[in-house]
Amino acid sequence: MISVEEAQESILSRIPILGRERIYIADALGRVLAEDVFASRPLPPWANSAMDGYAVRARDIAEASPESPATLRVIDEIQAGFESDKSLGPGDAIRIMTGAPIPGGADAVVMVELTECGGGDEVRILQAMPEGEAIRAPGEDVRKGERVFEAGAILLPPAIGMLAGMGRANVYVTRRPRVAILSTGEELVELHEEPAPGQIYNSNSYALAAQVREAGGEPILLGIARDNAEDLESHLRDGLAADLILTSGGVSVGDFDLVKSTLGDLGNEMHFWRVRMKPGKPMAFGTLEGRPVFGLPGNPVSTMVSFELFVRPALMKMQGKSILHRPLVLARLLAPLSKSPERRHYVRALAHWEEEGWTATAVGVQGSNIIQSMVRANALIIFPEYETELAEGCQVQVVLLDEGAALGPRPDPDALVAAPRNAEI
Amino acid sequence: MISVEEAQESILSRIPILGRERIYIADALGRVLAEDVFASRPLPPWANSAMDGYAVRARDIAEASPESPATLRVIDEIQAGFESDKSLGPGDAIRIMTGAPIPGGADAVVMVELTECGGGDEVRILQAMPEGEAIRAPGEDVRKGERVFEAGAILLPPAIGMLAGMGRANVYVTRRPRVAILSTGEELVELHEEPAPGQIYNSNSYALAAQVREAGGEPILLGIARDNAEDLESHLRDGLAADLILTSGGVSVGDFDLVKSTLGDLGNEMHFWRVRMKPGKPMAFGTLEGRPVFGLPGNPVSTMVSFELFVRPALMKMQGKSILHRPLVLARLLAPLSKSPERRHYVRALAHWEEEGWTATAVGVQGSNIIQSMVRANALIIFPEYETELAEGCQVQVVLLDEGAALGPRPDPDALVAAPRNAEI
Repeated sequence: MISVEEAQESILSRIPILGRERIYIADALGRVLAEDVFASRPLPPWANSAMDGYAVRARDIAEASPESPATLRVIDEIQAGFESDKSLGPGDAIRIMTGAPIPGGADAVVMVELTECGGGDEVRILQAMPEGEAIRAPGEDVRKGERVFEAGAILLPPAIGMLAGMGRANVYVTRRPRVAILSTGEELVELHEEPAPGQIYNSNSYALAAQVREAGGEPILLGIARDNAEDLESHLRDGLAADLILTSGGVSVGDFDLVKSTLGDLGNEMHFWRVRMKPGKPMAFGTLEGRPVFGLPGNPVSTMVSFELFVRPALMKMQGKSILHRPLVLARLLAPLSKSPERRHYVRALAHWEEEGWTATAVGVQGSNIIQSMVRANALIIFPEYETELAEGCQVQVVLLDEGAALGPRPDPDALVAAPRNAEI
Repeated sequence: MISVEEAQESILSRIPILGRERIYIADALGRVLAEDVFASRPLPPWANSAMDGYAVRARDIAEASPESPATLRVIDEIQAGFESDKSLGPGDAIRIMTGAPIPGGADAVVMVELTECGGGDEVRILQAMPEGEAIRAPGEDVRKGERVFEAGAILLPPAIGMLAGMGRANVYVTRRPRVAILSTGEELVELHEEPAPGQIYNSNSYALAAQVREAGGEPILLGIARDNAEDLESHLRDGLAADLILTSGGVSVGDFDLVKSTLGDLGNEMHFWRVRMKPGKPMAFGTLEGRPVFGLPGNPVSTMVSFELFVRPALMKMQGKSILHRPLVLARLLAPLSKSPERRHYVRALAHWEEEGWTATAVGVQGSNIIQSMVRANALIIFPEYETELAEGCQVQVVLLDEGAALGPRPDPDALVAAPRNAEI
């Protein structure tokens, strides 16, 4: 059995970064740039006015004050979107709107609040201004030729606005990984079916599909494979259209041989199949025709936790992201924990940021089949391999699964415990 | 001029929660439940084995030990997905796989590692087990009739797995807001056009569309309206198909009359049109035929910051979310800031979580036309209205725009400053 870190290293060393595709910037939110972007023109493209007012020659108003205004002749008016074909000579001013190009000869703008109408075509300037006042220089945001983005940048809204501002309608981004998802087991039925005695609904495919989407991938549902080599092989072949294959179930001691041997028959090279952690010890990782294959355990919580620790970083790397892992913070433990030694535990928990730091507390029953506690958790407390007791107040490492919630209002303590109504088994 | 808090209160008091729609759970990631979900059956649905082993009667193996094993007769084998029609009598055992239903008469499961093959149909049990050992009780995760989710719950992957586990293929969720986005101004051209002198690309529509998507809404691009009443009115009428209308530009002192009067002609009731903040002072909010209308300023950064503070919380409320605002944290200021009094500033910044707490530092040039600093920022420092100096080391309130990045690896200090290459204006 290998450690979580050894497993992550084994996985990430074998994960390729996917190729690129050119997409419309309106569809690019959250995508990863796959090109360096250089500015083909400066931003702003030309000197323009930062406010509504009058373009002037600073030297003409050097002595202006409310008591002794400088009177200038208004020779034109420039709306945003237009240029003036006039140029300022001594004693001239041009009325100018925010964003309009500065006319020739002008070297300052006086905001309209510091002027008075002088009657006819005259304006009275009430205050002296330094050269450059209220003028936005060309290229003060982006210079022509500047590398504005490096490949690897994540396209959040301001970046998309910047690309639009430079006139870029399309950009190269790394492809989103297509992820084939296969549930295995004789006990599983699809949501439209009625479970017979001994059967349960296939829930892992849906949880995994949502995790894949949240991680930026495109889920492909391969359905349910029964516990025989033909059915398993036929479903796994469908998965070869994907960039990465996930199976759930059929990897514990007794069952695993079938999945392992079927993968082997297809040419899979297995890198490891057990990790020293709980939940999620039975976790296999291999390579099949060049694509990563994860054999995740079948218990719903083990499936989801294994995805978080191993598959999500792989999907992040495939997309060319630089941050592969969830945020890890040190938190003060609010209630003690105990376990047996040897395996590291990932304890479903509620983390919360307080003004004095992070806190964390286990939430709900921790059995690997108990989905409720995973639903309630926003974090996983790392309970180290060889520790057996963690006292209240200890500093523990915590993986944040939902940092927004952890940074939000304090969770309602009543919500920590299931409060069933009309309970009846 | 009203304060940011007064503006937010004015807005949120007038924002409705949208109606609901029924969708497939595979499409429900991140959506907000619009129904209470009760369990129509327990989870697990019946007692089942937590491991591969033998179902036994605990009293039959009460004296078992490695030296003196209890020998039982194996009368059946149960795979997951099937029931046994046999029941255990004294001295009987049934081979059972993880997840398979516990047979009648059995009250414990002994894991296979604590047994030995006894030859023929016999198994030797090497250890006594308490009643209930390795048996998952029906309803231990979810009891029948239990309210598993309340309306308002956000459907993250574990919740989607839980819904699938209960056989729910579809759920009611709150509709996503459709948000009409209109840019105004004679100076704007679309991305496929070549700007004439004095013209610039329409970038606000793209930044806003991305912000709308990030906030869970569906953007509808209405294009560019020119500065005349007919064009503005015709575009605004298109926006009446949406749940909320955003305009950008045309709300500063001189220009605003046209947008304001055109909206008024259409029946808009204006609630406020200036907020005591920077960037983003000219920000109008009204109600047009029952739908919220936001007149956002035209400077790109003002547009985005106004969206963050005013539109995003409104979209969150429309979706029925309980957390409306971005996380707010106290951070230690790494470099001093100064400003003039009166307006509150939202300073583009890099926030970072250190083991001893949050830090924040302003990033880049803060002009409201400088998009680069908004691209680089992951947070906004709140510089209060009547303060003019904030010293290094001060505690400041910080709005986190990208908590993942703020909790990730420390930002590269070289990335704080623009490092243009081949610069040429």
